[in-house]
Amino acid sequence: MKLLRFGPKGAEKPGLLDAKGAIRNLSGVIDDLTGELLGDEALDRLRRLDTASLPLVDGQPRIGACVGQVGKFVCIGLNYADHAAESGMELPQEPVIFFKATSAIIGPNDTVEIPRGSVKTDWEVELGVVIGKEAKYLSEAEALNHVAGYCVINDISERDFQLHRSGQWVKGKSADTFGPIGPWLVTRDEVPDPQDLQLYLEVNGQRFQNGSTRTMHFGVATVISHLSQFMSLQQGDVISTGTPPGVGMGQNPPTYLKPGDRMELGIKGLGVQRQNVVKG
Amino acid sequence: MKLLRFGPKGAEKPGLLDAKGAIRNLSGVIDDLTGELLGDEALDRLRRLDTASLPLVDGQPRIGACVGQVGKFVCIGLNYADHAAESGMELPQEPVIFFKATSAIIGPNDTVEIPRGSVKTDWEVELGVVIGKEAKYLSEAEALNHVAGYCVINDISERDFQLHRSGQWVKGKSADTFGPIGPWLVTRDEVPDPQDLQLYLEVNGQRFQNGSTRTMHFGVATVISHLSQFMSLQQGDVISTGTPPGVGMGQNPPTYLKPGDRMELGIKGLGVQRQNVVKG
Repeated sequence: MKLLRFGPKGAEKPGLLDAKGAIRNLSGVIDDLTGELLGDEALDRLRRLDTASLPLVDGQPRIGACVGQVGKFVCIGLNYADHAAESGMELPQEPVIFFKATSAIIGPNDTVEIPRGSVKTDWEVELGVVIGKEAKYLSEAEALNHVAGYCVINDISERDFQLHRSGQWVKGKSADTFGPIGPWLVTRDEVPDPQDLQLYLEVNGQRFQNGSTRTMHFGVATVISHLSQFMSLQQGDVISTGTPPGVGMGQNPPTYLKPGDRMELGIKGLGVQRQNVVKG
Repeated sequence: MKLLRFGPKGAEKPGLLDAKGAIRNLSGVIDDLTGELLGDEALDRLRRLDTASLPLVDGQPRIGACVGQVGKFVCIGLNYADHAAESGMELPQEPVIFFKATSAIIGPNDTVEIPRGSVKTDWEVELGVVIGKEAKYLSEAEALNHVAGYCVINDISERDFQLHRSGQWVKGKSADTFGPIGPWLVTRDEVPDPQDLQLYLEVNGQRFQNGSTRTMHFGVATVISHLSQFMSLQQGDVISTGTPPGVGMGQNPPTYLKPGDRMELGIKGLGVQRQNVVKG
């Protein structure tokens, strides 16, 4: 299933993408797409619905982040060897964990704001993982069973804030609008191999990132298992699994976002995001 | 006012401490003590209640974290000069920001679990700030008006996870039970000067931390203003403002928590926490 949320920010309704690509309204079935509704049984109930009987959503509504009330927005740093190299950092011995503020979350096509004082706002297309079942001290073998589904994430980053403003990356990762998530939560049964997904990002039509989750340093199962040794993960938590090479900081000379820019990014089978960039 | 939440974890009810130190049940007035109920008007409504008419709570219920549904749990690192020195780190030029997982939050007297694999679980008494009004690009002069109130926080930390497991402190700050918050949310009108509060922490009756917010490097107003340049703060967000010297890592030899230990920590006027330590 491809699940989504549509409608104005803060008042999104749950929906489902039907076989023809139209949005079906799930409001009569569930209140919202949030943690407790992402377990296997809850998803199975949605799977058993007669899609054709669900109301069609008219027009082109705004699409929200594909999961609501996210408790934790966890990110993995330097998780592709070539990206670590372009960042001038060593490939880590263990997954590098950081958080983004949940208040940074927006819909996949919402406007991205360059924060005040920023000169180095950058992009990062990433495979997002949405947790469906609480995870604590998991083995790698168990890990993928705790995934509800996958999605596209743009882990927008202010490099000067991240690296040169007294340490800890969170400072450059948490501005409002720095976390577009979606368009769809694609349930894990439709993603047979999360380590074989093409992902790309373009700015103003120029392709900067073009990679595959095949070259991830720590795969999704390893990441979830590792994370779960340091914190418990709850239903609806989102993990952004790192970015392949091609970020702005890695260009020669470095290239950063400016007002008027337009990003497009996507992952095969998980949909496409398009964001206009404005001054914050 | 001293506001609090009581009852089983996940099913806390809102309460108010009356002049005699008894808990009055606010369930008939508000659903819970969460973000949207922490604005000035909402708190004024509680202030106008006739406390004596509110139901008394019998017995000694469990006390929960003094704010529910925390969106962000933001911490400030190395914010007391002597603590930076004992940590072997330089005093930062700007506030160091990191996040704790919101899933680490527990009540002030709940049991603290040493996570599996930990050998360096440590304590940190800190002044907590609860946001009452959304904050974005605030000046220092405006900052304190966005505070709902103050509380005690134990920013429990696993030093090996924090410092030696591939970077970013979040890894050592986010285990379940690593964030006792409370007992009370003391509204800001009752804290005339947040930069003049005594704070202490004892383990098994031995006093390790004994400080004052007077020696904070970046004061509360500076911290809030600074944070608000990098992310917006929402009602109910919690900021832990750093710890004075005396953590376990700073002892000679370093001293860490072990199962059976008992912590007691408090801030003058904001209450006391007591936690038993067990194996996780």
